[in-house]
Amino acid sequence: MTISDIAAARGRIAPYVRRTPLVPSAWLSSLAGADVRLKLESLQPTNSFKIRGAVNAAAAFLERHARHQRVPGTIVTASAGNHGRAMAFAAERLGLDLVVFTPRSAPKAKLDHIARHGADLRPAGTYEEAERLAKAFAADEGATYISPYSHPDVIAGAATVAVEILEEWPETAAILVPVGGGGLAGGIAIAARAVSPAVSVVGVEAEASPAFHEALKAGRIVEVEVRPTIADGLAGNMDPESITFDIVRRLVGRTVLVPESAIEDAIRGLFAEERVIAEGAGATAVAALVAGLRVAGGRVAVVVSGSNIDARVLARVLRRE
Amino acid sequence: MTISDIAAARGRIAPYVRRTPLVPSAWLSSLAGADVRLKLESLQPTNSFKIRGAVNAAAAFLERHARHQRVPGTIVTASAGNHGRAMAFAAERLGLDLVVFTPRSAPKAKLDHIARHGADLRPAGTYEEAERLAKAFAADEGATYISPYSHPDVIAGAATVAVEILEEWPETAAILVPVGGGGLAGGIAIAARAVSPAVSVVGVEAEASPAFHEALKAGRIVEVEVRPTIADGLAGNMDPESITFDIVRRLVGRTVLVPESAIEDAIRGLFAEERVIAEGAGATAVAALVAGLRVAGGRVAVVVSGSNIDARVLARVLRRE
Repeated sequence: MTISDIAAARGRIAPYVRRTPLVPSAWLSSLAGADVRLKLESLQPTNSFKIRGAVNAAAAFLERHARHQRVPGTIVTASAGNHGRAMAFAAERLGLDLVVFTPRSAPKAKLDHIARHGADLRPAGTYEEAERLAKAFAADEGATYISPYSHPDVIAGAATVAVEILEEWPETAAILVPVGGGGLAGGIAIAARAVSPAVSVVGVEAEASPAFHEALKAGRIVEVEVRPTIADGLAGNMDPESITFDIVRRLVGRTVLVPESAIEDAIRGLFAEERVIAEGAGATAVAALVAGLRVAGGRVAVVVSGSNIDARVLARVLRRE
Repeated sequence: MTISDIAAARGRIAPYVRRTPLVPSAWLSSLAGADVRLKLESLQPTNSFKIRGAVNAAAAFLERHARHQRVPGTIVTASAGNHGRAMAFAAERLGLDLVVFTPRSAPKAKLDHIARHGADLRPAGTYEEAERLAKAFAADEGATYISPYSHPDVIAGAATVAVEILEEWPETAAILVPVGGGGLAGGIAIAARAVSPAVSVVGVEAEASPAFHEALKAGRIVEVEVRPTIADGLAGNMDPESITFDIVRRLVGRTVLVPESAIEDAIRGLFAEERVIAEGAGATAVAALVAGLRVAGGRVAVVVSGSNIDARVLARVLRRE
């Protein structure tokens, strides 16, 4: 993937996504002893950065079919929520049929939103099972599988987050980013390498689901035990064939693990100090600073990747303060 | 007040305030049958638009003393919270002594923040009593009273909200704004009249505290009964000498009243649909659209003026969904 793929993605998604604000955080700046700014992907339509990759993938899929004058078939994906919701939004806007396999752990708020856009929901057990079923469906039905992370168009869409950060704040020294399947971290690292090679990209994972941490240690994708986490959007093993592993290994190098308590503290702190709503996954990069991570370079952009948190869950986290 | 006062305010406050985002709301656009965008003053440092007027007033006060080579004395104000917090922020940054008289109804979260900036807090009974005590303190001690709304520098600071809206979205047909003491509505109306005379400014008041509604009906400032409201930042009678009454009468004309239930629905809707945190006062202009107000012109900017809501109160409102 090159910067021209990312530029093409930017053009495709511009009518559908927001240029999200990058706001200074006095709270995190003081905690981290650095100038910390928050990239609020939490304010995207569909409430997460996933809209960037989803719209790019759907639009690129249509372009390819138009080029060969073929009728586009069904697309299929697996998602714990945000990618599914974003794909459902994209499919509705672009007039595509979409099937989404969803794990049991997906929050109701997320499933309701996917259904609202008219996608065909298929419940599965674990996230990994949803992914296997989606790939099998694609093979059996001649549908096109669009992975939530291991897909060049999805990664190119996610990469546009970094392009916006570096345009607005060229002095950025480091970007902190939550890591689930590695699509966001991978895309951001590719864009940063192309635009500002000195920028370091720091990936942050939930301790409860350390897929990249263990894979990077082993030098290959390994299966990890996934425990329950408030960062439901990051939980699960990655596709054994995921293209994100090599990208993250080359360009990010390692991930920082954060415990559940730091993620909850980050959700509470974002609310109390910045009036920003974040879901667990969305607050995970912030959690690294809350947990005491020191980042070199003095100018740190932190991606708040999503805000699809059930009102009930947020109320429970806030009451614990 | 002229546009050059507002331009001067903009220059003074630029180092301290944010140019806040103006984000499209699919939810409110569909409710109102219009293109609705939210001006998120809720994301300001100190969590409300009040920082604009407070910093402008404090900086202008210092400039006047510097011009006459006089040593600046103490400043004093009365506030249910947001103006007090913003003045405390401004006084701390600019090195001024500040006394704040606060009504009993002020939420703890707001009082804690005022104290954190080192201001001298003086508890009073009602808001009106806090205002009387602050003015008496100024007279007795030779301090300078800076009203939360009836002060040209405070109004000029608030007016910068409209300048930003109209710069970013010149097609704006109407601006919806919460009304408490009328400083924000008055400032916005002055700026809109100067920049885009065709823009209509719609003031929205909590039914529980209809100070402008009754005053505009009577043609003069009258005392109203103030009932408890979740929009604590708007509650109270206005200063009988307030300069905002004439500004609002001339340039805004009338106010729309919204019931408590609509304000709570607006807080919940902003959370559920837009992932925006708003306090009661901050959600009051949104509440008018929730309550069914139709606004002519098709392009409506709505000011979300603040987000200083106690976690406990927010949790309670969200649980009611």
